[in-house]
Amino acid sequence: MRLVGEAELEDIAVGAAILGTGGGGDPYIGKLLAQEAVRRHGPVEMVEVDEVPDDAFVVPSAMMGAPTVMVEKLPRGTEVIRAFEALGNYVGRRPTHTTSIEAGGLNSTTPFVVAAQLGIPLVDADGMGRAFPEIQMIIATMHGVNATPMTLADEKGNSAVIDTIDNSWTERLARTLTVDFGATSMIALYPMTGKQLKAGAFVPGTISLAEELGRLVRETRAAHGDPVAAVVERMNARRLFAGKIVDVARRTEAGWAKAEAQIAGTGDDSGSSLVLQIQNEHLVAIRDGEVVCSVPDLIVVMDAENGGPITTEELRYGLRVIVIGAPCVPAWRTDEGLAIVGPRYFGYDIDFVPVEERFPA
Amino acid sequence: MRLVGEAELEDIAVGAAILGTGGGGDPYIGKLLAQEAVRRHGPVEMVEVDEVPDDAFVVPSAMMGAPTVMVEKLPRGTEVIRAFEALGNYVGRRPTHTTSIEAGGLNSTTPFVVAAQLGIPLVDADGMGRAFPEIQMIIATMHGVNATPMTLADEKGNSAVIDTIDNSWTERLARTLTVDFGATSMIALYPMTGKQLKAGAFVPGTISLAEELGRLVRETRAAHGDPVAAVVERMNARRLFAGKIVDVARRTEAGWAKAEAQIAGTGDDSGSSLVLQIQNEHLVAIRDGEVVCSVPDLIVVMDAENGGPITTEELRYGLRVIVIGAPCVPAWRTDEGLAIVGPRYFGYDIDFVPVEERFPA
Repeated sequence: MRLVGEAELEDIAVGAAILGTGGGGDPYIGKLLAQEAVRRHGPVEMVEVDEVPDDAFVVPSAMMGAPTVMVEKLPRGTEVIRAFEALGNYVGRRPTHTTSIEAGGLNSTTPFVVAAQLGIPLVDADGMGRAFPEIQMIIATMHGVNATPMTLADEKGNSAVIDTIDNSWTERLARTLTVDFGATSMIALYPMTGKQLKAGAFVPGTISLAEELGRLVRETRAAHGDPVAAVVERMNARRLFAGKIVDVARRTEAGWAKAEAQIAGTGDDSGSSLVLQIQNEHLVAIRDGEVVCSVPDLIVVMDAENGGPITTEELRYGLRVIVIGAPCVPAWRTDEGLAIVGPRYFGYDIDFVPVEERFPA
Repeated sequence: MRLVGEAELEDIAVGAAILGTGGGGDPYIGKLLAQEAVRRHGPVEMVEVDEVPDDAFVVPSAMMGAPTVMVEKLPRGTEVIRAFEALGNYVGRRPTHTTSIEAGGLNSTTPFVVAAQLGIPLVDADGMGRAFPEIQMIIATMHGVNATPMTLADEKGNSAVIDTIDNSWTERLARTLTVDFGATSMIALYPMTGKQLKAGAFVPGTISLAEELGRLVRETRAAHGDPVAAVVERMNARRLFAGKIVDVARRTEAGWAKAEAQIAGTGDDSGSSLVLQIQNEHLVAIRDGEVVCSVPDLIVVMDAENGGPITTEELRYGLRVIVIGAPCVPAWRTDEGLAIVGPRYFGYDIDFVPVEERFPA
């Protein structure tokens, strides 16, 4: 167990945005909300997965929807508390811990708001070791953990509890409710026992990893080093492309932010172009017509100037970026994992090839 | 208090289909489900509104969605129990009574399934004295009664509880959930105390009125009399038009059955035509381009052969029908009532004129 306060949240937000592969919300907003909660209620107790008692009742908390909209429609913090407590009321048991459903600017820090305000510990973990756009895309789905009962709340005061026969139905119902709520909602879902959590349903240590990556960027930057190189090394990643964004086409569709960004190569990549296809997160990177990295591996866009991660909402014409590809957690590379989050699920007729195989060290 | 069994349900289903103005579901299916429940669990105790204790916890039960779909996707009876019990669990209080949300073939008989199976009394009432297509279209809305918490269940095993800031939000969220569930769902909503019920939030005696109308049709038919004339007299209605259906255009849209039917006049109405515009229920009747009856008054289509009510799903080319217009309950004719269910709400740029004023006796 250790305490997490304002300073740690700075690093966590940056590192989570790296793991968020462009999605998971705005790290700046997420950080502000969590820091405000910590200032008001004191630092958050963060516990390791191993420290959670078997009979704990762990309820992850998060935001859902198109982060594009979230930038304009600020969550107030109280909504996620409402969703979280509604789940406890529905189940008839007070949650003992919260944790993060996915790594991402907003979704790694949202649970800190809940933990700080309710005075409960937060588990150092997340559901996927990165961010994904759909609810069933979490390792717990492979462990037979139900996403429901799940609660959703909006900023107007509406809320819902859903209870579904499988996690794909959860995604379907939660998505239309979220669209009705104005394209974003605050959610609590995947209620678990400590025993389920410890059996591998969640990825241990994701928050600490985010903090480490954020610190690495900050410290390397301060030492006038190369933050991107430092992150690449720590993540066993590959530098895929460097260039200037020349086009970004966006649409908000069915509660997702979909987009395609084109990057014109510079330096060693001059004359080439890289296309990023996006559904909240970066799904595939296509260099001169050939896929060079795809889900479930992580495609991270970093600012060529300062090495900071860039979310899909921040992609804009003229920005100079470095794109890296990093291995996902091993569970996603199994057949069951690829069935849930592999390129074919997203409609790409390609086989998944690990980024380390495409680009041997 | 009196007991309602299989025989009474025959009449109730027919009379409710008259009050249902074409909507509220198939009276045949509704009757079968309720009769089966009564056969298995014994007759239902039906109590008058005045007999309900102030501290009773009354939860109406119903189906929601496009009745067109309901005809093909039979509800199993167990779903409505699931929705009903989920509401009690959510609120933390066991409902003491159920009642009918609207008059209609299915929605007047669905609560009998709940009452029979759970062994609780049913209140002789409904929320509108007819059927309407949207959730907030109930007199209780004018009395400030919240539609939520509301529960929805489908036949696959999915369910939801929603809690909204007003009854229009309830309609919005419940509609998209119902569309996701496959265009129909079984619901429990408008939980009320006995005191609220007795303060006029619901229309007293609607089930008895349905039974009386059904009996009137049956007995007049047996006596070789004119069932339509008998119903017109009992309801203080007007005979609007007689003719043959020459066209029905249907579409299932956003969980509603929308349609337009054209009737070519026969007898005294030869040379004229009547158009019925439908959203689950008959909304307006237009004779030779002029509105002759509109919501909230009741537009009822009856079979010219046997005097039985015809639902919008049964409208088909060649059917000979008599269309009647009947006064709605007085609460709907107030300014607040018309704001909720008047012709302008449904997009018609006309003032409501009571059918008795258009056609003085």
